[in-house]
Amino acid sequence: MRPHELTLATAAAEIRERRLSPVELVDSVLERIDRVEPHVGAYVTVTAEQARGTAREAEREVARGGHRGPLHGIPAGLKDLIDVAGTPTTASSRVRAGHRAATDSTVAARLRAAGTVLVGKTHTHEFAYGLTTPQTGNAWDRGRVAGGSSGGSAVAVAAGAATFALGTDTGGSIRVPAALNGVVGLKPTYGLVPRHGVTPLSWSLDHVGPITRTVEDAALVLAALTGHDPRDPASLDAPAPPGTPAVGHRPDPDPDLTGVRVGVPSTYYFDHVDPEVAAAVHHAIAQLEALGARLVETDVPMSRYVQAVQWGLMVPEATAYHARTLRTVPELYQADVRILLEAGELMGAGDYLRAQRARTLMRDAWARVLEEVDVIAAPAVPMTAVRAGQETVTWPDGTVEGVSDAYVRLSAPANITGVPALSVPVGHDTAGMPIGMQLLGRPFGERTLLRVGHAYERTQPARALAPVARAR
Amino acid sequence: MRPHELTLATAAAEIRERRLSPVELVDSVLERIDRVEPHVGAYVTVTAEQARGTAREAEREVARGGHRGPLHGIPAGLKDLIDVAGTPTTASSRVRAGHRAATDSTVAARLRAAGTVLVGKTHTHEFAYGLTTPQTGNAWDRGRVAGGSSGGSAVAVAAGAATFALGTDTGGSIRVPAALNGVVGLKPTYGLVPRHGVTPLSWSLDHVGPITRTVEDAALVLAALTGHDPRDPASLDAPAPPGTPAVGHRPDPDPDLTGVRVGVPSTYYFDHVDPEVAAAVHHAIAQLEALGARLVETDVPMSRYVQAVQWGLMVPEATAYHARTLRTVPELYQADVRILLEAGELMGAGDYLRAQRARTLMRDAWARVLEEVDVIAAPAVPMTAVRAGQETVTWPDGTVEGVSDAYVRLSAPANITGVPALSVPVGHDTAGMPIGMQLLGRPFGERTLLRVGHAYERTQPARALAPVARAR
Repeated sequence: MRPHELTLATAAAEIRERRLSPVELVDSVLERIDRVEPHVGAYVTVTAEQARGTAREAEREVARGGHRGPLHGIPAGLKDLIDVAGTPTTASSRVRAGHRAATDSTVAARLRAAGTVLVGKTHTHEFAYGLTTPQTGNAWDRGRVAGGSSGGSAVAVAAGAATFALGTDTGGSIRVPAALNGVVGLKPTYGLVPRHGVTPLSWSLDHVGPITRTVEDAALVLAALTGHDPRDPASLDAPAPPGTPAVGHRPDPDPDLTGVRVGVPSTYYFDHVDPEVAAAVHHAIAQLEALGARLVETDVPMSRYVQAVQWGLMVPEATAYHARTLRTVPELYQADVRILLEAGELMGAGDYLRAQRARTLMRDAWARVLEEVDVIAAPAVPMTAVRAGQETVTWPDGTVEGVSDAYVRLSAPANITGVPALSVPVGHDTAGMPIGMQLLGRPFGERTLLRVGHAYERTQPARALAPVARAR
Repeated sequence: MRPHELTLATAAAEIRERRLSPVELVDSVLERIDRVEPHVGAYVTVTAEQARGTAREAEREVARGGHRGPLHGIPAGLKDLIDVAGTPTTASSRVRAGHRAATDSTVAARLRAAGTVLVGKTHTHEFAYGLTTPQTGNAWDRGRVAGGSSGGSAVAVAAGAATFALGTDTGGSIRVPAALNGVVGLKPTYGLVPRHGVTPLSWSLDHVGPITRTVEDAALVLAALTGHDPRDPASLDAPAPPGTPAVGHRPDPDPDLTGVRVGVPSTYYFDHVDPEVAAAVHHAIAQLEALGARLVETDVPMSRYVQAVQWGLMVPEATAYHARTLRTVPELYQADVRILLEAGELMGAGDYLRAQRARTLMRDAWARVLEEVDVIAAPAVPMTAVRAGQETVTWPDGTVEGVSDAYVRLSAPANITGVPALSVPVGHDTAGMPIGMQLLGRPFGERTLLRVGHAYERTQPARALAPVARAR
């Protein structure tokens, strides 16, 4: 196995034991980037020289006995909404031409302190305002969408072009591309990971989190990201509550899920879902039961408000951030994003505050459901990656749904309620495209989510990298 | 001294010692109501028979040795936004014709459990949306405004027509009428007193709190009102933090303020303030210094945003609550309220969310100021009670300000930031009208506020009831 193929946990163990040098690892990843980038276009910028420099430092430090922890010497890509000092944060937009971040975002600084080797900035749907990432091809079929908005991050991880990556998630933007590219994506509890220095889409729905190849890797990255930062007003000013992985925490090695109550939605999450996706998720849920979990039929509360609340919050908040540039340089935005931003100018205060009130009620209703079960297991997205350019999907009952609406639909409840949500690969459809299962938990219940996801994962054969060069 | 003239603390001590019967007390208050109501119009409804029944029960219970605590047998008026089972909550509006509350609000239930004798419902500016309470005359001069929107409550307490009262405060509606009528008003920390069963004006700014004749009395009432109620989404789901008066708590009897840092605003709170008001407040601040407090010159952060944030939050939230009746029965609203409600329909989401964002920044900026001082001392209102019908005030520099804008101006910061604020009488102007000093503290710093207010109060002679029958 070449170094870029290793999971984070394995690479970290190799580095710690000095069987692998961070320099070898980053060189392998940079070579892989050279090979796959012409096919997938995951990166906006690759900072090869700085990365090699950081890797050499890590190598020296580890050689001197100064191993900092599991992220030391590990190559990572950051979604290009996340500030890294000295490099532009383009948000994959022409609006940001000439931009240059003066200082690190909180998460970049924390990764740096943990010894991570930043290899580059990955593509996003412009300003994260979309679910396809048009610049980037799916790692399993470049003719299909990468998913978004953290499409570059998910494709980089799936293709071996980064050992892990960070994404952001406002309506599914970590989980959707993770699911569509067969990798793991974690949207943490709202407020757990500070967003200072991360370009906002919709501050009351935005989250930063890891995209990795395994659940264990997601736990390792999350541990480095959590902790209060007063510069993000939503960041929690509290010690990490029980259940949040501490630094160095690795998921419970015990795959026994006896006593864990898994909610299986009888409504919403399996409506208008592709039969192959539903079957794969049900099969994975049966695996959880085989591991000892108790399945509990669960009703999803207030689900008919999800779409109105998600858009009612997101649209005006996004427009507020872009108000000035929308007036001065509207022509620099892509048409799809500009239309959404302009729509936000027409929204009334009443619609926005009704969305806020509905969110409060929804959060309470979900909290009651999550007293009855420990996690909810559901599809991450209703269908696998569609072909690039496909705008709608037609369900068997004749309903026509926009592709973006469909990809947001099962993700949005966790953004609205703030509960943590983990997407885990659970196989492929007959076209060979990956399918994701979503596990949702209680606020600050990341440990339980990771435990259940990891237990499932251990029942499966190790996953290979996506066969990137294959075109269809 | 007749029973209706007693402070709550004194009356409570007399009842506990069985030197005063709750029946004597309520009869004295009801007689006083009969005498003063033709002059001031503080009450919407007086529930004399129920009150006498409750008082008789209290008398029997105390006689049997079952004294429940300081509110047992004490007559109180509730602002007519606060549900009391079996009586209408008119909100002083024709829109509520035929209304009847099925159950008690949380605060009414808590007062009832503490043995309070509810004597009636007091007038509010219609739906609390104004600062004058036109139905009610000032207790010191019926030709002047009572202040609002809790005008009925403040006038009832000032005139001896209730031993204490509850009001609500969205932009000063407890503190303004308390100041204008020479009584004590406490707006507690946001979330400390549950609002379930209280008609909202603007849920992110609304507070319920006591209006009393002394600071000690305010502490006694507050202790009965606090504690989590999940039916108010803003109610704090936490044990009362240190500094919150526990049940039965009475203010620190020590009038020594050594070590207390009192912030004296060098900006905002003394701008466009009547010189007599400013002089009286500065004189009271000098008393605090004489008691040992250290005065610290304090800059008020982000003060130029106060008005925009207050109105930007309040107007659309108020409209949201009234959306249906505004469409079906607009003619039943008073013109001033209807205009404000209709204005809310025109507000954009962008304005509302900018106000929310500014609030977040303002709350943080205030928190930093309140690390440097323990309380801030300032005028409660810029001028004493104006004549009924007066619409503007002209300041010496020629600035013309709406009366409502002026009365909101110094109150709104505590609504926006959620910090507790106490209005304490500090004398009268040359026209004989009361002047109020406002003490602002840290979130959940009610104990410190009450301690400082009480220490000041002990330097002053006991206050008499307002001379209600006097007309000018």
